Amino acid sequence: MYTEKTVREFLDALASKEAVPGGGSGAALSGAQAAALVSMVCNLTIGKKGYEAMQDALTRVLERSEAIRRELLDLLEDDTQVYGRVMEAYRLPRKTAEEKEARETAMQSALKAAAEVPLTIAERCAQVVELALPAAEMGNQWAVSDAGVSALLAEAAMYAALLNVTINLSSIRDEAYVAATRKCMEEITWAKTDTRDRVLAIVNDKIGA
Amino acid sequence: MYTEKTVREFLDALASKEAVPGGGSGAALSGAQAAALVSMVCNLTIGKKGYEAMQDALTRVLERSEAIRRELLDLLEDDTQVYGRVMEAYRLPRKTAEEKEARETAMQSALKAAAEVPLTIAERCAQVVELALPAAEMGNQWAVSDAGVSALLAEAAMYAALLNVTINLSSIRDEAYVAATRKCMEEITWAKTDTRDRVLAIVNDKIGA
Repeated sequence: MYTEKTVREFLDALASKEAVPGGGSGAALSGAQAAALVSMVCNLTIGKKGYEAMQDALTRVLERSEAIRRELLDLLEDDTQVYGRVMEAYRLPRKTAEEKEARETAMQSALKAAAEVPLTIAERCAQVVELALPAAEMGNQWAVSDAGVSALLAEAAMYAALLNVTINLSSIRDEAYVAATRKCMEEITWAKTDTRDRVLAIVNDKIGA
Repeated sequence: MYTEKTVREFLDALASKEAVPGGGSGAALSGAQAAALVSMVCNLTIGKKGYEAMQDALTRVLERSEAIRRELLDLLEDDTQVYGRVMEAYRLPRKTAEEKEARETAMQSALKAAAEVPLTIAERCAQVVELALPAAEMGNQWAVSDAGVSALLAEAAMYAALLNVTINLSSIRDEAYVAATRKCMEEITWAKTDTRDRVLAIVNDKIGA
């Protein structure tokens, strides 16, 4: 389990010449960090004097950010697994016509799984961008910069994860699947950069930038 | 040492109601991940057939990315330390005029240290954005998306770190120091978003987006 490695060990594994963990797992970890920062802002606000009116809303935000943080850590592990499946399929024998066909079928199935995991990572990161907005609007003034960090990291991690979707789509032959996935990518990213910029405008206003 | 915690524990600490680790450390970790991904692209290219001409240049890139990765992990720890110093100064007694003055002096000194660490984090992240460019241009085609992930995460982490500079600057009274730091921030960010976009254009071209 990569999430049970120390931060230093995880980065060593990321930097190594082994193909996993790769960019998909990196995106998941940055997204998980962004979710954790939304949680931190909520945790520094809930129960604090002067923020009573925000308590209920931020409790709901916290529930979501914590659920997404857990999911993103699972997705970090999943991403290392699906890449392994593509590699396994790639190494299948391809001497006879039957072998070639079986290998291609295995490859196509593995590539779809390898596209779906980073697609879900991107979707969760997009949700974190949305959660950073109430955190910036209602969260403890002292921690407002952390909501800004969250929006920045989550938006970047979303696009980072989608690069890993695109690289897999380029080898998938099922055109309907590719088209549906591209549509899904558009929906995930829709207005997220604007939301990030709204968060940053609130943060900059509050920290007197 | 936060970098000796497991990934899961580090995220728990980030999400908790403790003020450290906070957004500065989160930015440092995302920057370190971005540096690790540049290293990974280099490690997947150096010594590989077809990439002989890139070997020397990418060996130099790898040396830099690995040095920056180590620095960013040290800066992650430093950021938790300097915040502690601000909190310590904040808690100093302030009954007499002498106490008030001593407290203010301690606060101002601690705030400068708390601004300088994320400023250095931002500078290192900016350097990673620059390193992602040769990684995307010359790196192994199979790993090119990782160079894109690196550029995305490093650019976002750079701006994330700078939010933590700005929030500290807002309480620093030394106007010359504030002006010099703001100038430094401009120099750090100069053209980095353009460089990120150049990296992404190369990556998208190579992965057939």
